[in-house]
Amino acid sequence: MQSLPGFRDFPPEECARRNYIFARWREVARHYGFVEWEGPLLEATELYKKKSGAEIVDQLFTFTDKGEREVALRPELTPTLARVVAAHEREFKKPLKWFSIGQFFRYEKQQRGRLREHFQLNCDITGEAGLAADIELVALCIDVLRAFGFGEKDFVIRISDREFWTDFLREKDVPVDRWDEFLQVIDKFGREPREKTAEKLGKLVDPVFATLKSGGKSEKLGKLVDGLRGRGLADFVSIDIGIVRGLAYYTGIVFEVFDRAGKFRAIAGGGRYDNLIGQLSDGTVSLPALGFAMGDVVLGELIQEISRVCQIMEKAIAQDRKIDIYVVIAKEERRADALKQIQQLRDGGYRVDYPLTPTKVARQFQAAEEAGASLAVLHGDEWPQLKIKNMATGEQELIPQENLKDYVAAHRS
Amino acid sequence: MQSLPGFRDFPPEECARRNYIFARWREVARHYGFVEWEGPLLEATELYKKKSGAEIVDQLFTFTDKGEREVALRPELTPTLARVVAAHEREFKKPLKWFSIGQFFRYEKQQRGRLREHFQLNCDITGEAGLAADIELVALCIDVLRAFGFGEKDFVIRISDREFWTDFLREKDVPVDRWDEFLQVIDKFGREPREKTAEKLGKLVDPVFATLKSGGKSEKLGKLVDGLRGRGLADFVSIDIGIVRGLAYYTGIVFEVFDRAGKFRAIAGGGRYDNLIGQLSDGTVSLPALGFAMGDVVLGELIQEISRVCQIMEKAIAQDRKIDIYVVIAKEERRADALKQIQQLRDGGYRVDYPLTPTKVARQFQAAEEAGASLAVLHGDEWPQLKIKNMATGEQELIPQENLKDYVAAHRS
Repeated sequence: MQSLPGFRDFPPEECARRNYIFARWREVARHYGFVEWEGPLLEATELYKKKSGAEIVDQLFTFTDKGEREVALRPELTPTLARVVAAHEREFKKPLKWFSIGQFFRYEKQQRGRLREHFQLNCDITGEAGLAADIELVALCIDVLRAFGFGEKDFVIRISDREFWTDFLREKDVPVDRWDEFLQVIDKFGREPREKTAEKLGKLVDPVFATLKSGGKSEKLGKLVDGLRGRGLADFVSIDIGIVRGLAYYTGIVFEVFDRAGKFRAIAGGGRYDNLIGQLSDGTVSLPALGFAMGDVVLGELIQEISRVCQIMEKAIAQDRKIDIYVVIAKEERRADALKQIQQLRDGGYRVDYPLTPTKVARQFQAAEEAGASLAVLHGDEWPQLKIKNMATGEQELIPQENLKDYVAAHRS
Repeated sequence: MQSLPGFRDFPPEECARRNYIFARWREVARHYGFVEWEGPLLEATELYKKKSGAEIVDQLFTFTDKGEREVALRPELTPTLARVVAAHEREFKKPLKWFSIGQFFRYEKQQRGRLREHFQLNCDITGEAGLAADIELVALCIDVLRAFGFGEKDFVIRISDREFWTDFLREKDVPVDRWDEFLQVIDKFGREPREKTAEKLGKLVDPVFATLKSGGKSEKLGKLVDGLRGRGLADFVSIDIGIVRGLAYYTGIVFEVFDRAGKFRAIAGGGRYDNLIGQLSDGTVSLPALGFAMGDVVLGELIQEISRVCQIMEKAIAQDRKIDIYVVIAKEERRADALKQIQQLRDGGYRVDYPLTPTKVARQFQAAEEAGASLAVLHGDEWPQLKIKNMATGEQELIPQENLKDYVAAHRS
């Protein structure tokens, strides 16, 4: 029996790396005053079909359930957020600053390194139309990556504005119903043969190519970068008018995060979707909103790529997995007393391990070492004294068994 | 648009309760030296069909994926554990003490309060056949519930042994291929009409009824309770030979946890499954194993039921959601400096919030209150001094802005 193609197992070492990523995500989101929420893994396919654009629907992990419902393993969180906010919005003061950490799915042709599931951090601000919210969101995205030890030489956030292009299309008298198609062409620019792009653009080809080359001018984007500069974060961003994002629902500022070396796919991406909540609630609730998502897979690859950052992770994981005390049972007659003490130590909030069955003392010390125990406490001939070994220094001392609790508390602090 | 029937949304308040449960689960499992792992949410249906018994297969959330695979949203973790351990077992020293926190699914007729998803803590010990492992596992299950504040008056673990019944069947010359069916009858005892049970048992009806009435004698179960008594945990368990658990793969000690008042379904359940890893690996890896699972739904209901325990939770959640500092921007001219300072405080590891847009000072203090801020830091006319308000005591003082970092650090410790 094997796992399904594109689905990962997380044995302890991989799970520790995943949890390290989750911990940094959660920590920084909370520094920014974001509160955690979560949606269901399964939603009606309808929720995604209407609003997310052609690309995501093709890759949906959809099926018909036993009750003949068309359902999908969620590919992204934004439509769920819009659904939940539309349903509960009166309960909350605006703006909402919500984050979520969960798993997402897609069904695409299986390729090397292309998974069918990944975990994402999603951070969204709902109910604030001003640029201050866009700045706050981009700053959060930067600080999430800084928390891993990444610097401005490691990654860049490319920022753009869909309104730049919709203004452009309005000026060129392109009908509104062709805008989505146009934005898809911009999104694919550079990934498609130049002739194909030119053909799709028709008479717009020259102004578009010129604009992409010159970079375009945008007062709003300038203000956004100024806001980040005020926080000391301007070196992490660059304006790139060629970014529009694939999803149909974006309306304003959009951004994507890449490694500076250009080796990996996007690390994160997001933007403003001011109309989505209104659309999903059939106009009963209208709230401006914006957000970004960061996946664990590309991020994990970039951590492995940059050894300085990887070392920070490995050190944190080694620290986190440590137990406090390993109880060495040198004489089986001492097992009952040892177990009573183990229970008390665990009750006291310590991580404690011991051998379940009679085991040679040398192997028990080896197990203590491997578990990263700070202390080994030996129950043996010295009873009612205990031999304590400081696993870091190798120092040993004898203490009366009734003093163990105080000794351990003093050692911890 | 609504969520699918049987699937929950977790807006912030519900998510905080879920995370509180996860945190206690993780904390106690780690006190016991268990390490975290995780498997995929989707597995080949085959993994469950063969080994888990009829009851679980009927309720499987199965479907055919776009690649014509028969797949299932996982109903339980044990078959995945057996699969992963069989594949990786050489990498790990035995016994393995692994725990996992994740979501599980079933597709059954929708009833009030019967969900199609829930979260579970799974704790398993692999590679240890002795009773010491069973005692360790039951003790862990007890201590997980104690960590929420539950006492021996709130819940009881009913413990049994499948070997008691297989010995009984051997003695009565019942052929091995009828044992599973017999165990299902014992499992349903009390939930089915007595006549139906009697009919199914045939000539075994009298000895079975007599055994269930007298409770039966089991040396192994006596030793297990003694082991728990040595740890001061005997009052949390009772021997109940009528417990056999529905799943086909159990082989030895089995147990189920109930509220003492008998109001809810089982809070947790588990037992030994010494043959499952061998069966799933076609005999290439043979390892004894045992484990339990505890779900979040019944546990959450019991927390709400017992007000003492519920208060502990609400207090912990209120404490956990607090931010450290709310920055009040009384003059918009001060916003740029305030944002620079906010960036520094967040970098320093503090949870900091502020108004994204110009807001009345009174409303900002209200927001500080609602976010549970310890301090409010006011940027106003006093600049370059800052007015600091201790939100707990209401005390206010002026400090030079360059002293803020030290002030906040002193206030925290």
